[in-house]
Amino acid sequence: VTEAEFSAPEGVRENALTVCIVGLGLMGGSLALAWRAPLPGAPLPAWPARIIAVNRSWPALEAALDRGAIDQGTPDLVEGVAFADVVVWATPVRTILRQLPEVGRHARRGALIMDLGSSKVEICTALADLDEGLQVIGAHPLCGKEIAGFAAADAGLYRDRPFVLCPLSRTGPAAVRLAERLATAAGARPLIADPSEHDRAVAAISHLPYAVAAALTRSVALHGAGLAWSLAASGFRDTSRLAAQDVDMMLDTLLTNRAAVLDSIDAFSRELAGLRQALAAADEPALRACLSEAQSGRSGIARVAKW
Amino acid sequence: VTEAEFSAPEGVRENALTVCIVGLGLMGGSLALAWRAPLPGAPLPAWPARIIAVNRSWPALEAALDRGAIDQGTPDLVEGVAFADVVVWATPVRTILRQLPEVGRHARRGALIMDLGSSKVEICTALADLDEGLQVIGAHPLCGKEIAGFAAADAGLYRDRPFVLCPLSRTGPAAVRLAERLATAAGARPLIADPSEHDRAVAAISHLPYAVAAALTRSVALHGAGLAWSLAASGFRDTSRLAAQDVDMMLDTLLTNRAAVLDSIDAFSRELAGLRQALAAADEPALRACLSEAQSGRSGIARVAKW
Repeated sequence: VTEAEFSAPEGVRENALTVCIVGLGLMGGSLALAWRAPLPGAPLPAWPARIIAVNRSWPALEAALDRGAIDQGTPDLVEGVAFADVVVWATPVRTILRQLPEVGRHARRGALIMDLGSSKVEICTALADLDEGLQVIGAHPLCGKEIAGFAAADAGLYRDRPFVLCPLSRTGPAAVRLAERLATAAGARPLIADPSEHDRAVAAISHLPYAVAAALTRSVALHGAGLAWSLAASGFRDTSRLAAQDVDMMLDTLLTNRAAVLDSIDAFSRELAGLRQALAAADEPALRACLSEAQSGRSGIARVAKW
Repeated sequence: VTEAEFSAPEGVRENALTVCIVGLGLMGGSLALAWRAPLPGAPLPAWPARIIAVNRSWPALEAALDRGAIDQGTPDLVEGVAFADVVVWATPVRTILRQLPEVGRHARRGALIMDLGSSKVEICTALADLDEGLQVIGAHPLCGKEIAGFAAADAGLYRDRPFVLCPLSRTGPAAVRLAERLATAAGARPLIADPSEHDRAVAAISHLPYAVAAALTRSVALHGAGLAWSLAASGFRDTSRLAAQDVDMMLDTLLTNRAAVLDSIDAFSRELAGLRQALAAADEPALRACLSEAQSGRSGIARVAKW
């Protein structure tokens, strides 16, 4: 690492960087595994140098130590963050909001505080209130799967996924660069965005699909097992997949991004009502136009999203 | 094949069976490929003995001949069905409804007429009107993918998928057995059901998910490319996947299963409205119950559907 690339907190050599991951579930665990399984050709084979994990229960910490994902684990938040150059929050959003002030008091001066929460406006507001001696940045990697917990963690989870970073006005350029390098080291593609813009975008493409998957599943599940359950094939499986996501995480996500999610649900409901009306009237030209626009719209999104 | 297993039309040795597939797209093409790529341990390495395909354009027929999927191809429906022991319709539903009477006049006496259409009430009503000298059965294999056409055909498409059969009161037991063997020979799991029961079930688990995917895609696509498109990850990709399905096929499916699809859309809309209400009120216990029931409901469906 040359001096020019240096972007660690003041006084820390970047190649000696210590990171503390708070919450060793799917997201935190996969991040640790990704950092410890560098991409082919990566210049630094084990970077960050030291990974500490904080988790409320021991089994995930022990499993992570066994798999070589972390160097040290503790259930004590204050102990975990005390010597970290970077603290990464990988818990549900409201846990982050609740614990941030305490961590702000115990983190070392100059440390970078970032998070992986799925909504950003409330978190960035809380980050802005932390001690001025800390660097802060909001983050949200667009990846996941429907199984929670460290057992489901996967070194490839972040690979080629967008990793949104929301710097605050107080965030210094070196902190932004460090966050970008941490995202890149996990295989992800860092992307700078405004918190409100982020929250509206993920309401539409992540939180709304979850709400839709939950309602779809309920509309089939609550009628009890019958022929429909036996026939539910890959179409239903994929459309309903998000309903299997971790409820605690999604509850926090929806409740901290309420206005944007409600707007997205309303926009969706208007589209479904339009489709329903064309079908009820057996208006074939209108129905064809509606379905064709959906089909070509999806191709457009697929090109931009690089599926 | 022993005499006891014999279930071909009168006067036809089952191991000399000739099948005509009408419509050589994804479904018809995959069926031909599946029959020509038998499962390990299958007793009859090439059964049905002869596969004829009828398709309105030549390129798919030529591609299928090149891949060894069919023995003979023609764009002429009357020529294709004239010597077939079994005619399998693999076109959109309204094409089947339009062409059935003509085929009924030209098919050989004792031939089995079946279809692969995604809705069954209207087709079974039309099958009931065919000449009494023909055997008839409605069918619907629960498989597919979002790419249409023979180029996307796949010998494994039917593997382990439910293959619904709707015998009419006039359908003889030998015809049912033959249809079951044809489904099994493609790797699928035959399942007998009533047409109305089938149509209500697929409205809920197939046609509703398509409508929801189309409305979801429109709600994101019609606002134009922006951050949302760049961030659309696997969650949005999977939830919206069905919107990419062939519009002609789905238009026919929705329009011929209108009442059941409208009922399913309404049941879904009530569920989404309930979720929206709990979120708007920030009623955490109600929202948690709603999302938890969706999560456990999906596990229940997954067990029955054997994902």
